[in-house]
Formats: sequence, structure tokens, C-alpha cells
Amino acid sequence: MKQDGPLSHMIRQLSVLPGLGPRSARRAALTLISKKDDMMMPLIRALSEAAEQIVTCPVCGALDDTSPCRICSDPSRDQGLICVVATLTDLWAIERAGGFRGVYHVLGGVLSALDGIGPDNLSLDDLKTRVAENVPREVILALPATVDGQSTAHVVMDILGAHDIKVTRLAHGMPIGGELDYLDDGTILTAFQARG
Amino acid sequence: MKQDGPLSHMIRQLSVLPGLGPRSARRAALTLISKKDDMMMPLIRALSEAAEQIVTCPVCGALDDTSPCRICSDPSRDQGLICVVATLTDLWAIERAGGFRGVYHVLGGVLSALDGIGPDNLSLDDLKTRVAENVPREVILALPATVDGQSTAHVVMDILGAHDIKVTRLAHGMPIGGELDYLDDGTILTAFQARG
Repeated sequence: MKQDGPLSHMIRQLSVLPGLGPRSARRAALTLISKKDDMMMPLIRALSEAAEQIVTCPVCGALDDTSPCRICSDPSRDQGLICVVATLTDLWAIERAGGFRGVYHVLGGVLSALDGIGPDNLSLDDLKTRVAENVPREVILALPATVDGQSTAHVVMDILGAHDIKVTRLAHGMPIGGELDYLDDGTILTAFQARG
Repeated sequence: MKQDGPLSHMIRQLSVLPGLGPRSARRAALTLISKKDDMMMPLIRALSEAAEQIVTCPVCGALDDTSPCRICSDPSRDQGLICVVATLTDLWAIERAGGFRGVYHVLGGVLSALDGIGPDNLSLDDLKTRVAENVPREVILALPATVDGQSTAHVVMDILGAHDIKVTRLAHGMPIGGELDYLDDGTILTAFQARG
């Protein structure tokens, strides 16, 4: 394989995707080329279409092909109830679960000294402006139950503290269908303390 | 996320790649869109270029942007020495190792009753025609050391049996740098029997 040929170039571009390394990128490239009409051309079309049409919602920071996004512009969603999430995948997880009828604010990650993510890398200022312009009734912090997630939650609470907003967090406890024997000690302890 | 929007369409197309499932496809899609100029546009360009330029070599079955491929058309490679491999990734592995100066024949897989891959799915007929037209001095069977790989090797040997060709196989034994304690019994036994 020529090192600067189209095949190795394609493999290099695929291998930087999260979840794909050099070996799986080679395998993916071969599969794509051997199924040019069934896989490769549809992928190229889908990527080009997405690159052209998808924009960041100026209100909540989610991605959609409309601006503001479908959720922010949906009149049936409660604009007084904002759920703060770290990433868009977390937003999707909540939407898949169903049941939440408020709107979101996507921070774009959590604070992480290790990864060099500070307050300026997250959409904290946008959240500050957003709640100042239109004070919500309640803000739900749906941030990861990790050290970084919880320190991010503290920073968000500081921002919200300037207003009279009810701030809640997702409950901790046993996952539905979870077996005690397979749960970590922290979760069991929390579930005991929050029993009711 | 709208189920038929460009974002979900892109994720669906990514998730059919080997090595990516729905979850990693979502993560890859988000990374691509957040790095549109650095990752997404170069990937689209690389894929389009590859789709346009890469062809299957009519001689050996490898992929390249020239036809015949660079290896088949290289006058310094020994056309009388053919190395039969299952896949293009195996060819690349041998090229990375260096040292082999012959040419290849890419079968496109190995026989597998489980995966429904029969003789007609491999380029066995091409090999038959190729060796009949230009009888090589030696054919090296560099097929996987699995049951399917070895039954494929037998079929290839049947094809070659019609001509006076020296047929060899890759040696089995300890990998360089391998420790006995971490090797499987079959490899140790083979290495003992082939000692010298």
C-alpha cells in the first residue's frame, strides 16, 4: 500500500475516529471499498448531508438540522424546566428513556483538570445568560455521578445561586433490574441512605 | 433527535462499519461534527477520493489506485514466487514485515461453512487461470493457522497439483519475543516437533 495513496489516506482519516484504531480502521476501509454501492457511497452522502445541515442550537447547545433545535422550539415542552447535561449523548439517553417534558442545556463536557477542560471550555456563560434572561422554575442537574461530574454540578449551582431557582439532581440508587451482588458498595450505601 | 434527520442518518451509516456499534457510532458522529473542519471534511474528501480511485487489481485481487496494482507491476518483484493470502490485511501485514520480494494472490477470505463462504466466493478460479497461464516456481500458502484456513490451503493445493509447482507453507513455532508460559499447547508442541 502506497503510504500517501488514497487507500492509506482514507484509513488514516478513519483511524482518528473515537472507537477505531489503526487495525479496525483498515478493516472498516476494506469493508467499505468491497461494498462501495451499499455502504461507502451512502456513508459519504450521509456525512456530506450532515456536514451541510447540522448546526448547534443557539439556545441549548444541542445539534440539530433546525435552529433553534426541535426540542427548544417545541411549544409542548416546558421552558421553565431545564435539564443540564454534560453531552449530547446524555441528552439522547434521557430522550430515549422518555418522560422528561422540559428543555435541556448541553454543557459540552464536564470540568476535568486531567483533560485540561476548564469553565471556559463549557457553555457555562451561555447558561448564566440564559437563566438571567428567562428565569426557569427548576433546573435538574443530570451530570455524571463521577468526581468531575459532581464538581461541575457545584459550579453550575454557583451560577444558579444568583436566582430563585429550585435545583434538583437525579436520584442515586439501584438500577432497575440490578442485582445487589453485582452492585458496587457506593451505590448500595447510597441506596440504603436514600431508602423510602 | 429526529429519527429520519441527517444526524441519525449519519449515525446509522457509521454504525454498520465493522468495529463500530450504535453507541460508538453516536460518539464518532458527535466528534466528527464538533471537529467539522479538522476531521469531518477531511474524512469526506478521503472517502470520496478512495471511492473514485481505488480499484481491484485484475491480477492478484489486491486494492490499489493503479491497475494492475503497484506490487504486480513492480519489475523488481519476483513474478515466479506467489504468496497466497486470505485477505488484503494479511498482505499488508507481510509487506509491513518486509523481506518478501515475490507477488501475491488475495483469495478474499477463507472457506467457511459457518459464514456460508464456498469456493465460488473466493478467487480460486482466478488463481487457477493465473498459474495455468504463467506457471510460478513456488507458491507460498500464507493462510490463517485455523481449521478454515487449513481447509482452504488444501483446496488451493488441489488446484496447484495440476502443475509442477513447489508449494510451501509458513512455518509454525514460537513468536519472536514470545514466552513459553504464555503460549498455547499446540504452538509449543509444533515448535518442539519442528525444532532444528
